[in-house]
Amino acid sequence: MRWIRFTADGRTAYGIVEGDRIVEVEGGLFDGTPRRTGAVHAQSAVQIEIPLLPRTFYAAGLNYTEHVIEMARKRGEEPAIPQKPDMGYRATNALIAHDRAVVIPADATKVQYEGELVVVIGREAKHLTEENALSCVFGYTIGNDVSERDWQKSDRTFWRSKNTDTFKPMGPWIETEVDLEAMETAVRLNGSETLRFKTGRMLFGVARFISTMTRYVTLHPGDVIWMGTDGLSPDLKPGDVVEIELTGIGTLRNYFVAEKTS
Amino acid sequence: MRWIRFTADGRTAYGIVEGDRIVEVEGGLFDGTPRRTGAVHAQSAVQIEIPLLPRTFYAAGLNYTEHVIEMARKRGEEPAIPQKPDMGYRATNALIAHDRAVVIPADATKVQYEGELVVVIGREAKHLTEENALSCVFGYTIGNDVSERDWQKSDRTFWRSKNTDTFKPMGPWIETEVDLEAMETAVRLNGSETLRFKTGRMLFGVARFISTMTRYVTLHPGDVIWMGTDGLSPDLKPGDVVEIELTGIGTLRNYFVAEKTS
Repeated sequence: MRWIRFTADGRTAYGIVEGDRIVEVEGGLFDGTPRRTGAVHAQSAVQIEIPLLPRTFYAAGLNYTEHVIEMARKRGEEPAIPQKPDMGYRATNALIAHDRAVVIPADATKVQYEGELVVVIGREAKHLTEENALSCVFGYTIGNDVSERDWQKSDRTFWRSKNTDTFKPMGPWIETEVDLEAMETAVRLNGSETLRFKTGRMLFGVARFISTMTRYVTLHPGDVIWMGTDGLSPDLKPGDVVEIELTGIGTLRNYFVAEKTS
Repeated sequence: MRWIRFTADGRTAYGIVEGDRIVEVEGGLFDGTPRRTGAVHAQSAVQIEIPLLPRTFYAAGLNYTEHVIEMARKRGEEPAIPQKPDMGYRATNALIAHDRAVVIPADATKVQYEGELVVVIGREAKHLTEENALSCVFGYTIGNDVSERDWQKSDRTFWRSKNTDTFKPMGPWIETEVDLEAMETAVRLNGSETLRFKTGRMLFGVARFISTMTRYVTLHPGDVIWMGTDGLSPDLKPGDVVEIELTGIGTLRNYFVAEKTS
């Protein structure tokens, strides 16, 4: 099932995506079986919103081998492959929806994409095992962990390099059924494919992360976990359009613009 | 004015602290002038809750000189005094209220306190200057940035060392008027003072942080910024009681217990 959050006729609501149509429902993501309101919208006639405002915004960081090796090589360092799953955090101020603009700050020098699988938590969870870890997952969406690489290098933390307003496109919707083993992540820049990798070929998979995390932290409905990316990105410039497609979920598309300065 | 969130007679509400009494009000922190409901409670008769569930939970990290120097010395490293304000993040799963228990995990080996000033944002803000930065501040409370130092050293991120459930006591209430220059932070362990420092003697003050942050990120009502700590902490053990007193705000008290393992 595909849950979408959208605005139509000045009202924001959840709906279920059925082909090109959106069947509007009452209530939120975690209110149980969706109740249809009777309203139906053409997908092309609505404005897609971020699928949810996360409660805690987790990010796995270095979670694919090639990405770790290539990022280290670019810094002239030996790659340090993580030996265990350690979570990072991102911030909700930076979230934007499908089809909205990423604003490149006037002083940014090196902005890149990172196409990621996003896990949406649906149930409170603590002390899960790898075997039952996925029981707390509501569904999956797509994230673009836009990053300013020079700030990522110069700053003590990732606050600005990864959490500048508009740097976290997420969407277009939440798909509840995916095949984590079979799916692929493909990134297109201005229509041409620039990256493709097996989404499941992570250093630490979704179940491993959740079981490790819930040894110490309680996960809550509305938490999201961004699972990291593989490979590299070219430097992006105003006018670029980035599409991230994950098999079985859909395509998250965003365009890049320059910050207006007065 | 002191805003408190509390539970009495099975109902959670906001109130205004007046001496030993709590005057219950309608609505939330950011709904304008508080409207008294007519209900009044004795402070001793209510259960104090965390003052708010933050939207984004910012933490300044290394923000007092002595703390930076002593932490580096303990690791056998040269201290690197930050040259600019870079924010970190904490997570809401870890928050607990005044008078609740910090649970020391069974495998934790070195748990310490950090007494901190907490800034509560009340208005959406972007592009503030140092001069008008404090215009977005709603008030101030107290935080204890409980940290497991061995995990802080061993893990790639602070997810577990600083965000394990119960590791973030915050409260007891929000005070809207403080004197940032005059106030002192004092920490007592089991009734004996172990640390005292001028709260305002930060590397980068509240206004500097807010002006730097809002160049890139939008602050929202309900965001909190923990401003860092000075000095060091002894290692804490089950049975310990930590009180953090900030002049003009009050005292945040929490006790430490061992995790129950089955």
